[in-house]
Amino acid sequence: MEQRLTVVTLGVADLERSARFYEGALGWRRSPQSQEGVIFFSLGGWVLSLFGRKDLAADAHVSADGSGFSGIALAHNVGSPAEVDAVLAQASQHGGRVVKAGEQALWGGDSGYSVDPDGHLLEVAHNPFWPLDERGQVDIG
Amino acid sequence: MEQRLTVVTLGVADLERSARFYEGALGWRRSPQSQEGVIFFSLGGWVLSLFGRKDLAADAHVSADGSGFSGIALAHNVGSPAEVDAVLAQASQHGGRVVKAGEQALWGGDSGYSVDPDGHLLEVAHNPFWPLDERGQVDIG
Repeated sequence: MEQRLTVVTLGVADLERSARFYEGALGWRRSPQSQEGVIFFSLGGWVLSLFGRKDLAADAHVSADGSGFSGIALAHNVGSPAEVDAVLAQASQHGGRVVKAGEQALWGGDSGYSVDPDGHLLEVAHNPFWPLDERGQVDIG
Repeated sequence: MEQRLTVVTLGVADLERSARFYEGALGWRRSPQSQEGVIFFSLGGWVLSLFGRKDLAADAHVSADGSGFSGIALAHNVGSPAEVDAVLAQASQHGGRVVKAGEQALWGGDSGYSVDPDGHLLEVAHNPFWPLDERGQVDIG
């Protein structure tokens, strides 16, 4: 087996609202393979998928009941502390809500968090110890 | 800005228990950059991070209260329907619980789901329309 994941799916209440958040906050473009009922973002070898929250629970054969902290956070790393603030500002302009402004982190970088329109956590971070390659990817071995 | 994410962090109750699940179910190896209090898996350009659930909430400045369906699922795609069943069996042998056995999906592939020791959903899927390249990655444009 290979050490990879293929898709992370966020269950959302309103597909278009969520897609506009990720397009606006992060400058992403949805995949042409997006379809009625599911929107994909190609992330360089894997996929973020937006799908109806109830549909996701039904597909997994679990109850859709749930509230509060999901216990999961997505993180988008950027090239500088100033970029952390800029991306968080964009997030709040596109339907997000900043729950932690960018600040110096104990681990030595800078980080802040927005929630997306459904409350999913999106961290924006600058980590000087994890340099991003020319494709924006990180390889920590 | 680039179209990518850098890290997906799962908040967990017991770091070692969770790490053993992902090592056993999926055959992964933890990154040498893992530290006291955080375990990383390098996924070919990005990272799955295991971190204390309360620590994650505190880091994001949100309440750790929450229960039930998280509204998020990870998916690991494999090369055949038989592999779906094999990986789900491994998941259940390593602390997971299969909530949906592998079966043909409406979208034309095969899929099943396990939960990890904290209830995070892990889908195992074969999608013949998304061929995996030699690194196991998918590019949907």
